[in-house]
Amino acid sequence: MAGCCAGLAAFLFEYDTPRIVLIRSRKVGLMNRAVQLLILAYVIGWVFVWEKGYQETDSVVSSVTAKAKGVTVTNTSALGSRIWDVADYVIPAQEENSLFVMTNMIITMNQTQGLCPEIPDKTNVCKSDADCVAGSTGTHSSGVATGRCVLFNETVKTCEVAAWCPVEYDARAPEPALLKAAENFTLLVKNNIWYPKFNFSKRNILSNITTTYLKSCIYDAITDPFCPIFRLGNIVANAGHSFQDMAVEGGIMGIQIKWNCNLDRAASLCLPKYSFRRLDTRDVDHNVSPGYNFRFAKYYNDLTGTEHRTLIKAYGIRFDIIVFGKAGKFDIIPTMINIGSGLALLGVATVLCDIIVLYCMKKKYYYREKKYKYVADYDQGLGSESDQ
Amino acid sequence: MAGCCAGLAAFLFEYDTPRIVLIRSRKVGLMNRAVQLLILAYVIGWVFVWEKGYQETDSVVSSVTAKAKGVTVTNTSALGSRIWDVADYVIPAQEENSLFVMTNMIITMNQTQGLCPEIPDKTNVCKSDADCVAGSTGTHSSGVATGRCVLFNETVKTCEVAAWCPVEYDARAPEPALLKAAENFTLLVKNNIWYPKFNFSKRNILSNITTTYLKSCIYDAITDPFCPIFRLGNIVANAGHSFQDMAVEGGIMGIQIKWNCNLDRAASLCLPKYSFRRLDTRDVDHNVSPGYNFRFAKYYNDLTGTEHRTLIKAYGIRFDIIVFGKAGKFDIIPTMINIGSGLALLGVATVLCDIIVLYCMKKKYYYREKKYKYVADYDQGLGSESDQ
Amino acid sequence: MAGCCAGLAAFLFEYDTPRIVLIRSRKVGLMNRAVQLLILAYVIGWVFVWEKGYQETDSVVSSVTAKAKGVTVTNTSALGSRIWDVADYVIPAQEENSLFVMTNMIITMNQTQGLCPEIPDKTNVCKSDADCVAGSTGTHSSGVATGRCVLFNETVKTCEVAAWCPVEYDARAPEPALLKAAENFTLLVKNNIWYPKFNFSKRNILSNITTTYLKSCIYDAITDPFCPIFRLGNIVANAGHSFQDMAVEGGIMGIQIKWNCNLDRAASLCLPKYSFRRLDTRDVDHNVSPGYNFRFAKYYNDLTGTEHRTLIKAYGIRFDIIVFGKAGKFDIIPTMINIGSGLALLGVATVLCDIIVLYCMKKKYYYREKKYKYVADYDQGLGSESDQ
Repeated sequence: MAGCCAGLAAFLFEYDTPRIVLIRSRKVGLMNRAVQLLILAYVIGWVFVWEKGYQETDSVVSSVTAKAKGVTVTNTSALGSRIWDVADYVIPAQEENSLFVMTNMIITMNQTQGLCPEIPDKTNVCKSDADCVAGSTGTHSSGVATGRCVLFNETVKTCEVAAWCPVEYDARAPEPALLKAAENFTLLVKNNIWYPKFNFSKRNILSNITTTYLKSCIYDAITDPFCPIFRLGNIVANAGHSFQDMAVEGGIMGIQIKWNCNLDRAASLCLPKYSFRRLDTRDVDHNVSPGYNFRFAKYYNDLTGTEHRTLIKAYGIRFDIIVFGKAGKFDIIPTMINIGSGLALLGVATVLCDIIVLYCMKKKYYYREKKYKYVADYDQGLGSESDQ
Repeated sequence: MAGCCAGLAAFLFEYDTPRIVLIRSRKVGLMNRAVQLLILAYVIGWVFVWEKGYQETDSVVSSVTAKAKGVTVTNTSALGSRIWDVADYVIPAQEENSLFVMTNMIITMNQTQGLCPEIPDKTNVCKSDADCVAGSTGTHSSGVATGRCVLFNETVKTCEVAAWCPVEYDARAPEPALLKAAENFTLLVKNNIWYPKFNFSKRNILSNITTTYLKSCIYDAITDPFCPIFRLGNIVANAGHSFQDMAVEGGIMGIQIKWNCNLDRAASLCLPKYSFRRLDTRDVDHNVSPGYNFRFAKYYNDLTGTEHRTLIKAYGIRFDIIVFGKAGKFDIIPTMINIGSGLALLGVATVLCDIIVLYCMKKKYYYREKKYKYVADYDQGLGSESDQ
Repeated sequence: MAGCCAGLAAFLFEYDTPRIVLIRSRKVGLMNRAVQLLILAYVIGWVFVWEKGYQETDSVVSSVTAKAKGVTVTNTSALGSRIWDVADYVIPAQEENSLFVMTNMIITMNQTQGLCPEIPDKTNVCKSDADCVAGSTGTHSSGVATGRCVLFNETVKTCEVAAWCPVEYDARAPEPALLKAAENFTLLVKNNIWYPKFNFSKRNILSNITTTYLKSCIYDAITDPFCPIFRLGNIVANAGHSFQDMAVEGGIMGIQIKWNCNLDRAASLCLPKYSFRRLDTRDVDHNVSPGYNFRFAKYYNDLTGTEHRTLIKAYGIRFDIIVFGKAGKFDIIPTMINIGSGLALLGVATVLCDIIVLYCMKKKYYYREKKYKYVADYDQGLGSESDQ
């Protein structure tokens, strides 16, 4: 058997298969099959049927547009009777994955650059100029201190600041919210998703939906689960909050669109699932700037060319459209990986049974004799050969 | 062999290896090696070479800026001759992953808060005040109904609304689009990507690109595949649409940047791949608010301080820059998982051959005798021992 | 043994286990155990303990809000002394995952639609009308050429354009930056994350943080690693850049929030990790529109109703809040896959030892005899049977 090609021939023309002991025993036999069955059941049933271990997965790439509709009227001393439409309460006019609807505001009309006393608070009430550091700006001050201490009203004196005057007084947001009627506004969400790996794309406006339906429908989890038009009040209610409470100080609502698709089945079964979650904190003990608000200004020039502005601290609800999901499709790699490990697990059956047969059963020595062939080094004598 | 340490000694100093039957048979031998070869080829070739099963993957983290350039002139009865530059047609002035270019618009000049008749449509044409419900606001109404039915023109009467007057008449977008010249505007996209797991970052402005080239180049899939400056017309054309059609009612264009990188190779081979897709629907039967448009207003104060606004319904193309991709790098875990399963699969070869040898071949009984050693419980008699 | 049910009985009541040669040899035995130990150590130690191979992972879904605070004063010839507050320097007023702070600007006051000479540069200096093509618009021209060549000043003539006049002169950004004081502004980042697969959500404002702390704290990697309020200057410094340099031409800063959570442990151990990266290029040789800037305008109407605008080329720093991370939680699938491959790898031990025992050891022929049973086809004679 020397010589390379002889070795090659041996390698090619020899077939080696392990020698097996066949133990005819109901107990052990049944037990063995049972264990194997269990493992097989796990591999096939759980990994493949339930967890779809045979699928390659991809996560979603998405594009969203949102459009609000609705008009309301407010009646305040400052503004009188005023109509609010989309151009007034959606700021900025368009965003990529979100839309802000102003529900409440603090308006400071006709500000100009100048000098004026601060709104009194613990930091800026003063007795004399000594209490005001010129050029200083606190975190919450609305301007740069001039160093003078001036009368805010008959009784109180505060530090004077160079700022947009008069300075905003935003002690608390109006209650109830000015645009509380926003509860009835509607939001049309258009979402186009794409699974690059499978080059599969779909829209949340399903092809079996008619235009007439879209013109009238309002999303409802039970009756209209695929209508992409949402009533703002319902969104907040679905998240378990009160719109009127939220409208006062504002907040963030997440409109979650879940696209979990099994692309081994018909594309028409790949459907969006909407859910709603409030994304800002409501813990009363961590309400550093609670809710959601920001400031913006409208700028004017008067005859003399001096610049005026109307400062608006806008409270409102930002609707973030969060799209996520996974698509699965049969793929050879994960399938093989799972089959491989499944087979490896089958090996466990034999190991388990061997342990029982060779250590727990009363005939264990008899079985061991059959399974094992003891070979010792010469020096240890060959007595053990007898068990052949 | 009783006693724990004796058992330990046995465990440590004994080496157990399965007993093998070596069958010298060309047929079976070759078949066995062939099957093993196939599985080996699959494991190595497919899993490792093709699907890079030895790599850990990470998905991209990205940051994008976009900047438009271009000027055009329009000539309309309402506005006369008017120049449009970036500050005029990009709204809002900056966004994170997208940029909106206004291509068409309906302008309603000089609106003020007041009372005026609705634009006639099926819902708001009226004969008498009885037809108009005070305080009602329909989904498409531009204000809050006062309950009066007034003359819209000589012939038609419509419900009066409290609204920004005069109300917008947006029956249809101007055709051709006002800013149809936007086709020649250019878009500079700067994209910086990062793979956190591998701490690998790169820009879409490749280091071998000169500034002079960047000042002049225009992206072209064949001639300039790495130029980050895009002509708007080309983007739409590459997606298989007509810019002039799209400009009228607007739409969403996806600029997809794909970063699939094999980090086991040189970083310079990790290159962006641009592709373009239209993201809004064009199904004629689902065109609820087709294309893409939104409203915004410019606010003015006149001498008396009353607020005026110019309402603009802006149609245009929003360019969403969608960055995606996966990077792969050698990692021990997936490698071992794949090797493990590969080995397990090798076991299949033996199983297959055994089936053939022991059940299909004419000498099967002879081979079985060699492979199997039958052991029965005593009660079943020891006859089967004879086959030793 | 013929007959189906007999076969079934055989299948059910027979237990087959491989026959083993037990070689009593210190050398081989120890070696075998050593190899097995190594593989076991790898599978348990590395795959499970280190790489958490028993966990299912999910990537983060996030929502972010950012709010800037700070006031500063500038003193320029054009504007005189002017106060800048949030409403002035944050543009647009709100965005989803980012916030732009204007740090520098070029203001062109009181532009109107009209005709005026271009700012001289290599492309538009002219001798006579012949040098100016009517209706042409270069990439960098601020309007549409009228075809006339007019005096820009006493010495230079440039092509006349129909544009917003006077045209902007943006040769270079002011140095130092106008709003260099922005270095001391603060940024409050609120981040709410969610792992859909595990329905686990958390905020970056940890529940053990008090409101008083939040009102005063400033993020610092060592002393205040969980304070969500950042000083702009520190952000840039942490990324290894100079705020004052960056402020002049603007740029993009990435505020990276990393949420790597092991959900098998207490939720309180799932903490955000902040890091800062500059996202725009600073390569001097690729500075096509370096830094970050964009143009926007404020529109006015004068008495005659003609439209004026103030054009602002805003340089500034955009802060992109990039949230990423993976959460892991025990799951049966990956566990089984890893156990499976681990077992398969254990098989390698036997293979290795067999090779050594049967090919490298001096007693190899003796061992082979014990392990193998040679079976030849009849035609090759049965001589090899003797080794039984």
